[in-house]
Amino acid sequence: MDFSYSSKVKELEERLQGFMDAYVYPNEKVYEQQLGDSADRWTAVPPIMEELKQKAQSEGLWNLFLPDSEFGAGLSNSEYAPLCELMGRSLMAPEVFNCNAPDTGNMEVLVRYGSEQQKEKWLNPLLEGRIRSCFSMTEPDVASSDATNVEARIEKDGNEYVINGRKWWSSGAGDPRCKVAIVMGKTDPDADRYEQQSMILVPLDSPGVKIERMLPVFGYDHAPHGHGEITFENVRVPKDHILLGEGKGFAIAQGRLGPGRIHHCMRLIGAAERALEELCIRVQKRTAFGKPLSSQGVIREWIADSRIEIEQARLLTLKAAYMMDTVGNKVAKAEIAMIKVVAPSMALKVIDRAIQALGAAGVSEDFPLAAQWANARTLRLADGPDEVHRAQIGRLELKKYQ
Amino acid sequence: MDFSYSSKVKELEERLQGFMDAYVYPNEKVYEQQLGDSADRWTAVPPIMEELKQKAQSEGLWNLFLPDSEFGAGLSNSEYAPLCELMGRSLMAPEVFNCNAPDTGNMEVLVRYGSEQQKEKWLNPLLEGRIRSCFSMTEPDVASSDATNVEARIEKDGNEYVINGRKWWSSGAGDPRCKVAIVMGKTDPDADRYEQQSMILVPLDSPGVKIERMLPVFGYDHAPHGHGEITFENVRVPKDHILLGEGKGFAIAQGRLGPGRIHHCMRLIGAAERALEELCIRVQKRTAFGKPLSSQGVIREWIADSRIEIEQARLLTLKAAYMMDTVGNKVAKAEIAMIKVVAPSMALKVIDRAIQALGAAGVSEDFPLAAQWANARTLRLADGPDEVHRAQIGRLELKKYQ
Amino acid sequence: MDFSYSSKVKELEERLQGFMDAYVYPNEKVYEQQLGDSADRWTAVPPIMEELKQKAQSEGLWNLFLPDSEFGAGLSNSEYAPLCELMGRSLMAPEVFNCNAPDTGNMEVLVRYGSEQQKEKWLNPLLEGRIRSCFSMTEPDVASSDATNVEARIEKDGNEYVINGRKWWSSGAGDPRCKVAIVMGKTDPDADRYEQQSMILVPLDSPGVKIERMLPVFGYDHAPHGHGEITFENVRVPKDHILLGEGKGFAIAQGRLGPGRIHHCMRLIGAAERALEELCIRVQKRTAFGKPLSSQGVIREWIADSRIEIEQARLLTLKAAYMMDTVGNKVAKAEIAMIKVVAPSMALKVIDRAIQALGAAGVSEDFPLAAQWANARTLRLADGPDEVHRAQIGRLELKKYQ
Amino acid sequence: MDFSYSSKVKELEERLQGFMDAYVYPNEKVYEQQLGDSADRWTAVPPIMEELKQKAQSEGLWNLFLPDSEFGAGLSNSEYAPLCELMGRSLMAPEVFNCNAPDTGNMEVLVRYGSEQQKEKWLNPLLEGRIRSCFSMTEPDVASSDATNVEARIEKDGNEYVINGRKWWSSGAGDPRCKVAIVMGKTDPDADRYEQQSMILVPLDSPGVKIERMLPVFGYDHAPHGHGEITFENVRVPKDHILLGEGKGFAIAQGRLGPGRIHHCMRLIGAAERALEELCIRVQKRTAFGKPLSSQGVIREWIADSRIEIEQARLLTLKAAYMMDTVGNKVAKAEIAMIKVVAPSMALKVIDRAIQALGAAGVSEDFPLAAQWANARTLRLADGPDEVHRAQIGRLELKKYQ
Repeated sequence: MDFSYSSKVKELEERLQGFMDAYVYPNEKVYEQQLGDSADRWTAVPPIMEELKQKAQSEGLWNLFLPDSEFGAGLSNSEYAPLCELMGRSLMAPEVFNCNAPDTGNMEVLVRYGSEQQKEKWLNPLLEGRIRSCFSMTEPDVASSDATNVEARIEKDGNEYVINGRKWWSSGAGDPRCKVAIVMGKTDPDADRYEQQSMILVPLDSPGVKIERMLPVFGYDHAPHGHGEITFENVRVPKDHILLGEGKGFAIAQGRLGPGRIHHCMRLIGAAERALEELCIRVQKRTAFGKPLSSQGVIREWIADSRIEIEQARLLTLKAAYMMDTVGNKVAKAEIAMIKVVAPSMALKVIDRAIQALGAAGVSEDFPLAAQWANARTLRLADGPDEVHRAQIGRLELKKYQ
Repeated sequence: MDFSYSSKVKELEERLQGFMDAYVYPNEKVYEQQLGDSADRWTAVPPIMEELKQKAQSEGLWNLFLPDSEFGAGLSNSEYAPLCELMGRSLMAPEVFNCNAPDTGNMEVLVRYGSEQQKEKWLNPLLEGRIRSCFSMTEPDVASSDATNVEARIEKDGNEYVINGRKWWSSGAGDPRCKVAIVMGKTDPDADRYEQQSMILVPLDSPGVKIERMLPVFGYDHAPHGHGEITFENVRVPKDHILLGEGKGFAIAQGRLGPGRIHHCMRLIGAAERALEELCIRVQKRTAFGKPLSSQGVIREWIADSRIEIEQARLLTLKAAYMMDTVGNKVAKAEIAMIKVVAPSMALKVIDRAIQALGAAGVSEDFPLAAQWANARTLRLADGPDEVHRAQIGRLELKKYQ
Repeated sequence: MDFSYSSKVKELEERLQGFMDAYVYPNEKVYEQQLGDSADRWTAVPPIMEELKQKAQSEGLWNLFLPDSEFGAGLSNSEYAPLCELMGRSLMAPEVFNCNAPDTGNMEVLVRYGSEQQKEKWLNPLLEGRIRSCFSMTEPDVASSDATNVEARIEKDGNEYVINGRKWWSSGAGDPRCKVAIVMGKTDPDADRYEQQSMILVPLDSPGVKIERMLPVFGYDHAPHGHGEITFENVRVPKDHILLGEGKGFAIAQGRLGPGRIHHCMRLIGAAERALEELCIRVQKRTAFGKPLSSQGVIREWIADSRIEIEQARLLTLKAAYMMDTVGNKVAKAEIAMIKVVAPSMALKVIDRAIQALGAAGVSEDFPLAAQWANARTLRLADGPDEVHRAQIGRLELKKYQ
Repeated sequence: MDFSYSSKVKELEERLQGFMDAYVYPNEKVYEQQLGDSADRWTAVPPIMEELKQKAQSEGLWNLFLPDSEFGAGLSNSEYAPLCELMGRSLMAPEVFNCNAPDTGNMEVLVRYGSEQQKEKWLNPLLEGRIRSCFSMTEPDVASSDATNVEARIEKDGNEYVINGRKWWSSGAGDPRCKVAIVMGKTDPDADRYEQQSMILVPLDSPGVKIERMLPVFGYDHAPHGHGEITFENVRVPKDHILLGEGKGFAIAQGRLGPGRIHHCMRLIGAAERALEELCIRVQKRTAFGKPLSSQGVIREWIADSRIEIEQARLLTLKAAYMMDTVGNKVAKAEIAMIKVVAPSMALKVIDRAIQALGAAGVSEDFPLAAQWANARTLRLADGPDEVHRAQIGRLELKKYQ
């Protein structure tokens, strides 16, 4: 039983925090400013982002998410956890360090399952941060919480696959640098339930790919990244664009989701820490009814509950990471499901208290709270809604007594 | 003990619901469309709004909020309750019926406390829906939950008052039709705590009035209405622009807040009803893991809890309205404080469940849920944050045993 | 819309409250004392109870629960509500006024469905408070939340019925005055699902009736009333002991449960009011960390939340009573289910806060809090557990949109 | 970062679990039976307890709580954690292993602060399980959540101390084997706030010590252990009975409370695990509305939430234990406060769900749930109520930003 980080991790943590303090936090408003100034929020990337990316890369704070040491930093999940948490404190940070979703998940899929050719064409530019990617799985017409509901078709036709379907919440699709989508669809609707689906690489400039609209999250457009609704109409790609092989879609999705989920949770812990910090600073500055907000008992309870909930969520996330590292994602599935339920709800509660403590400022653009809240809210839905994870946890628990 | 509505109210309810069905719901997307199409979201009002206003006025569904029967519909609070609730189902509806905040509160202030001249100049065009108004009380630099913190100054100088201060969350200030602000500020900082403040009418085109920016709420700009941050720099208005007299600001605020708060609560009940309706419809259409969402026990619990919470919030709001009607706003202060705590939280819970049931669609623009949620969230802060109301309720309860 | 009570009700309320103040509260400890003094808590009834019953009867505060004006007070549900609430403030009060469960339900069943002979033999002494009764429905071996699970058998044999089965939670069975049980069991297991069951009157001194043990609730034995586990082994009663007829058990249960449930809810509101009162009094007397507990913000929030929750639960209960009075128990089923979910949970929360505010005293015998809490806890299970009621509310809501 | 236990701990855990399975669980009802059979629940200890103690001692499962390796097992807090958790699964288990409160805390005080003479007289028989002890700190007349409120007096008079005061919730005082109390009182009311108090050893057979009554907890008498209200009237003890010296009472209390609190938390985790186990077993056995309770979605959510809450509470407790072991109780004070808030509430929620799932059986004596619930409820009050700990956590957090 040892709750301390290794010196390697501590050193990385310190450097990353230094970078956040020096370059990220001071540029959050700059990023927003540059984005707002551009004629169209979807055609240009704020220049500050590319500047910061270069700096992060030059300092070796790059691709830290990737456990593979040939392509990435080679950190285990539990080593990456405190670093990913730090990045989660700022919505713009993950991209600065080339650690943002869904590119991280897509890169990991390519590392694990991509052919040499696929790696050369898509993985390398992604690793270098030159292009972006999206992941097209969710569909507007079915309950996507049940992955077997997917209706998009991927049909072989000679040396090509033909893709038809409507996807939405393809996050990142709005970015002018976004060049490729990993699309999930059915190659064989008659196969076994978990072997009907495949994943395939689709260049976004393929004829028949149309971004119908960018979907807002609450009132945020999340430009230039964004969330695309995309139609694929008789889109043709060479047959070597398939990933791993026909019928492997579900298996790849399972492999992809473990790390994807835990990264989200790590970042949410960082977002909650930042919110608690904003709260604590603010309530010591403001006075109402004759005493500082910080000396009101009710606000101290908010702080205490927030600290407690953050600590517990972090420990459970670290435990899940430790299990992924030691016994594998499959055995750790209950723990992964648990943090996927815990972390978003925890973050929502902590951020909401901070909003309440800050008053109207909290719902505005002056603090990162409202935007972080909206982001956290989507994570009670993305990668499986809470209730699906809860059902799985319940099922696994019951099995112990059968 | 009688929980039924009078036939007058039932008839109005039926007509209002008919209007909502025929003209409001079908035009929600039209309104958004027209707003999105305009070159600048702040300079033009979507034409559909003026069309609907005319129609509502011609049908006598106009100024229903105003208990004064000379200027308005002459309905009591408990009579207006079910009508206001219906309007709350759509974010665009209150304006259609000239029953939207903060104009309602401003009109009521003018009816009760305005001079004949003030009424003629500002009340009449407001009643006719020709102009809009805003209310400038909250300030960015102090904890405005404590109204005595207000720092803006209103100083007499000969036949004029000179106004200096910075206000924000002046809702409605972005509207091109918004012509006047009721500004709260201190005329005499040395007077008794509750007699330092006054309210004054300030035409928005007065020199020295500057709208610094429009504040977003969870990413929503709420154009063209919006929430303004406004600076008042040596703004001069004739001395007859003061409302009721120097030092009466706090008293007017108290009178204004009772109805203002209960209207918000009534609308929130409508918003929650709409969300529950969207939820119930959706879960009967979607299937996951082999059965319709509507037959999942967990979702039935969401529905049951939502129905229970809505019913309880509605009854408490009706009771508060009944007390305002029978014993007056002052005696009803505990009840008003209670619904101000209950209704926003109830609506947030119910809408959040609907969002969860709808999945990603719920956080998008395709349903009114996310926008309604953001609106409800601000109402845990506006007109006094929850914790201030709770403190008051606690104090009033303790007094019974002293 | 009228939230006031009639003058008849107000007058009864005042007299009842006077009686509570003068005779009930001062004798709560006396009752406990007399009970503790008796050699066996199950063989004697504390004499103070019979004294108070006589006094209540002589003052006309008797059988107020019974809407039938031939046998009882002839009050409607909404008229009885504030009176029943007052009785709920003290665990000993309902019996003092002959308004305690399960006798009230049993009397109502006899009034509505009993033959003249049954009325004469059992109803009259019950109405006069000379005997007590119990209700034997729940069984230890099946999930009784689903009433169709009942396994007890009632078989006709010549001019008799023969009863076999094991029942528990037959409340009141411990009382030496308890003379009769209404037993639910299957007369025809092959009939339609809702016509398999019957109810029958079984004198407790019939051969084959055996009280196996009295069940504690948390650590309370609830002597001398108590909760019996009873076996019925070839118990024979004349065939005229059946109620209404074979196969009518489910129908009678439905009729019995509406009033039974709402009475529980009314009493729980009273219990919560009493707890809030104890809390408010205590926190003004005790000081910690240099200021009275009553001036701590956190405790004021407890008070505010309690006041809010009580008001809402009371209004919903009154609404349900009003509907039962005006449109009948069947149409009011959603409302009855709602209060059955709301009232126990509300009372548990309010009482729990009072316990917390009183500290260790709260869990002891010095205040009625712990005993009231335990009682309220059983009411999340008795007459249908929360989740069964929630499921029904959800189903009824969904039906609106089918 | 390492979440695994050492092989030493795993081996102990396995043996302890074996003992629980073989001897403790099967004898829980035996213990209750023997207790119920005795003429007076307070005069005899059920013989099975002494049998099991002997067996545990002979197997070396004895005094595991004591980190001191001269007198006890020499385990660190984090090593003891999983063992203490196992003991918490049964209310009778801690005493079997001589690890029950308040004797553990009293033994630890004697080990750390006792004189050789005090150790010989009291520590040795306690370590051997031959006598029991109690701790008299809380007083009925003041808010004991603020330890400085203590009013009992300990006054020097020649070679003796004279003790006067009224204490309650002296747990264990009812036991016929209980021979000594550690009493807290003021030796110098004029000293510095934290140096007014002292602790002194008082043999329970000293003239002037009177056990006024045993206090019930939710109806449970907890015989023969129990919770005593004790008056000390001019009780005289030799001056060498003082612990550590005059004015050291607060310091000893602080030292005593860290381990005492964390042991409670560990046991509560065990109690929650047991409840979840009972729930999972039961819902697979019972059927309602045509399907096993275990396949109802709502019940699966209860299970999932329980699993999540238990895991999080356990991890936070282990982290606190790890910090106590590595940086000391003082630095770990925020963590200790956090688990003191988390563990009782977690256990209450989990046990309450189990009660609900078991129906009426859950509130009865047939399962350990109701008794465990009542015990957990007192732990939101004992050793500092939740709100005092929350206030401290809030204060510590705010300090980071001053």
